[in-house]
Amino acid sequence: MNEKYYIKFKDNDIPKYIQIYQYFKKNIDRGIINEGDKLPTIRQLSKDLAVNKITIINAYNRLEEEGYLYQKMGSGTYARRKNSLKMIKKQYSETFKNLNRQKLKNYIDFTGETISNSFFPVDIFRKILNDVLKRDGIDALTYQDFLGFEGLRKSIIRYFWQSRFKKDDVLIVSGAQQGIDIIAKGLINNNDNIVVEKPTYSGALAVFNWKKTNIFEIEVEPDGMNLESLEYLLRKKKIRFIYLMTYFQNPTTVTYGIDKKLKLLELAQKYEFYIIEDDYLSELIYDESIEYRSLKSLDRYDKVIYIKSFSKLFLPGIRLGYVIVPDKFKESIENAKINSDISTSSLMQRALELYLNTGHWVKHMEFLKSEYNLRYNYMKKQLYEKLNDFIEFCEPGGGLNFFIKLKENVNISSMELFQKCKANKVLITPGGLFYKDYTEGNKFFRISFSQTDNESISTGITVIYNILSQSIK
Amino acid sequence: MNEKYYIKFKDNDIPKYIQIYQYFKKNIDRGIINEGDKLPTIRQLSKDLAVNKITIINAYNRLEEEGYLYQKMGSGTYARRKNSLKMIKKQYSETFKNLNRQKLKNYIDFTGETISNSFFPVDIFRKILNDVLKRDGIDALTYQDFLGFEGLRKSIIRYFWQSRFKKDDVLIVSGAQQGIDIIAKGLINNNDNIVVEKPTYSGALAVFNWKKTNIFEIEVEPDGMNLESLEYLLRKKKIRFIYLMTYFQNPTTVTYGIDKKLKLLELAQKYEFYIIEDDYLSELIYDESIEYRSLKSLDRYDKVIYIKSFSKLFLPGIRLGYVIVPDKFKESIENAKINSDISTSSLMQRALELYLNTGHWVKHMEFLKSEYNLRYNYMKKQLYEKLNDFIEFCEPGGGLNFFIKLKENVNISSMELFQKCKANKVLITPGGLFYKDYTEGNKFFRISFSQTDNESISTGITVIYNILSQSIK
Repeated sequence: MNEKYYIKFKDNDIPKYIQIYQYFKKNIDRGIINEGDKLPTIRQLSKDLAVNKITIINAYNRLEEEGYLYQKMGSGTYARRKNSLKMIKKQYSETFKNLNRQKLKNYIDFTGETISNSFFPVDIFRKILNDVLKRDGIDALTYQDFLGFEGLRKSIIRYFWQSRFKKDDVLIVSGAQQGIDIIAKGLINNNDNIVVEKPTYSGALAVFNWKKTNIFEIEVEPDGMNLESLEYLLRKKKIRFIYLMTYFQNPTTVTYGIDKKLKLLELAQKYEFYIIEDDYLSELIYDESIEYRSLKSLDRYDKVIYIKSFSKLFLPGIRLGYVIVPDKFKESIENAKINSDISTSSLMQRALELYLNTGHWVKHMEFLKSEYNLRYNYMKKQLYEKLNDFIEFCEPGGGLNFFIKLKENVNISSMELFQKCKANKVLITPGGLFYKDYTEGNKFFRISFSQTDNESISTGITVIYNILSQSIK
Repeated sequence: MNEKYYIKFKDNDIPKYIQIYQYFKKNIDRGIINEGDKLPTIRQLSKDLAVNKITIINAYNRLEEEGYLYQKMGSGTYARRKNSLKMIKKQYSETFKNLNRQKLKNYIDFTGETISNSFFPVDIFRKILNDVLKRDGIDALTYQDFLGFEGLRKSIIRYFWQSRFKKDDVLIVSGAQQGIDIIAKGLINNNDNIVVEKPTYSGALAVFNWKKTNIFEIEVEPDGMNLESLEYLLRKKKIRFIYLMTYFQNPTTVTYGIDKKLKLLELAQKYEFYIIEDDYLSELIYDESIEYRSLKSLDRYDKVIYIKSFSKLFLPGIRLGYVIVPDKFKESIENAKINSDISTSSLMQRALELYLNTGHWVKHMEFLKSEYNLRYNYMKKQLYEKLNDFIEFCEPGGGLNFFIKLKENVNISSMELFQKCKANKVLITPGGLFYKDYTEGNKFFRISFSQTDNESISTGITVIYNILSQSIK
């Protein structure tokens, strides 16, 4: 058989069929074996490698299960090149497409990115909606100013920016995802060079990929992006935008230090790029040593495009957020918004405004902070107690997630861990989703305590323990 | 002075300053005179053309007013190339940005594209919202299935498609504009060849321009797009998509004949392109000889991408619509939706579903049809009575608009007419907005009776009469 399928068995502790499986997987992932390449027959390969046929069958079965090869009737076995990120995203998202709400209730869901519904004050909100309809009548349901409902924009400036900006600086959008989308549409061109954190939010990666930009990833350290690597890149390439999350970065949970923030702004000025700051969950700070100072609030050079979501903290079904962009970009962004969906749903903007102005928002955030602080500490304790032999993580000090690294002794990829957890009715988020090349996320996964009470946190982490303790080298 | 500024005065009935103005305007629009080209001094040009200086000053003033030239202090006069569609769109849209709701009330607004707020049953809708919140509780406000709320998708299939499709064929979007946007994002590539009607909806043109497609315009005739021109083009170019509106096309108000619809589907099959059908106001048919048969309902080849808006007929502040796409496009479109804004506001989907299922939708449409039929007939009568000497139009037989052609004897562009109407507190939509080259719309404008009662229709058309009667050659 072909030279390239010669496999040298190195490790006597790993079954041969696993070594064969790994060999093909690695070579297909790296493009050494290409889509559609014919693989040797079982008989041929067992002869070449001097192993039992059943060993080859086991290896091929596992490859087929994972989508790395396929059979053509009467013709043989062929390699399938898995389109890295796209493939893994598909496998992951189909889990949720196939689990409707009813089925999802039987799972322990560590994948949540938003506040649990159980914390939402439905009755207060129903009253607010009625008050809005009584107060504004038909106006509540019709188009408003193209920037969004004026009252909400005023309240945002007053509550969140101490009137540092003007109401017309704010553009209301249908959630942070739309913010990223219209920024890409209005400001970014094909082939622009864009920097993202490594790893980063997959929804942003998808938009930048779609826009056919050149994406450069810069490693995230415990206090934010590695600025030496960044400046090295800035000297070599004309970078137009950097997309980042300053608080509890998704997925790493890292928060930027003040020095890094100031340095980033200086770099933006020096190298003439703009920073897209996705302000993600910064309301949920549990560690009192963490101070809230957004990049936008520190920005003396008008270099920051600021995106804020209300959906994550308030209610995911209410698609609301806003952006504040440098003056020179305003018109482009406004046009991109109009061409995307004309404007954001009117009633919900008015409801949020009243919710802010009647003091409910502040009270609700205090409540969420204290509840999630408890869950945060409980999950942290569980992770240390049960998984200490298998994992490492940095304590985020806020937010809704932990980002976990599998230790060297653990012999399982996070995608396999995801599959095994799923089979045991526990859902986690595999790290591959957050990298351009998904294999770089093999050692990482994210778990969230947003949807789980202490009991399910305990049960779920025990499930993970059982799987990991069977995966030790 | 330069040879290219030699102007031959042809028509003794047109003042010389107008002929000079027209000469420069035409040559700047056509790019014969370029952005930044220096124009002769007043003195020089008056000498060259052997006309009075005041004639040149009048011509230059008008050109400057319209943005065709600008002065540099101490340096002279320079040409400005107007970026056709973009410029005219800006002038038009800034009218609305600068007129807030309060100011707009002092205008007679013939630009409306949606049902008047005064027809909306606020009290019924408030009750519906409360019923939804009581029935569904927190579920009403949270994420639903990624395709949109299942109950609404079921109702759409039942009421509008007699169960010809399945609920999972429907993807809920935040209005028709988002429908066009995600189709462009999910299916269309840079440099794809796209056909649109000439003229067509400016919001669609903007999206296709953004996507950097090659846009081909095919003239609209009284029964739809000219299919000879289309087939001629199809033989020469590989066309991927045709975007069209089958009922009361925007802006021409033309409705496709059944023969054209069937022929279009045959062409789609033969030349392997897809048709994006924007089903626009088809509920408002006043002429009983017009039968409702969407292209999608006639489509045997799975060649039609169907877009429906609820915002225009129901309430513009409720951003709701849906798309049904051929099976092979489903996954791409769903991903484009997720990357655009995750999902559409949950509560409004449930409210619309209940509104449909309690019979309110059907009753409301009947009511709207009878009210707008009255306005339609009234405006038609007014147009014939007052403007017969100046204009021509085809009777649409439905919808909310008339598309007006200025007769040859009228010496005013529709953009000038727009400006003069605006000065008299009447708003119309100039034709230029609907063409790739806005000058092709100079002879056309659109007037809508959606926001105007009979009294304002009468007053507004008298204003137009006064302007046009002063613009006769």
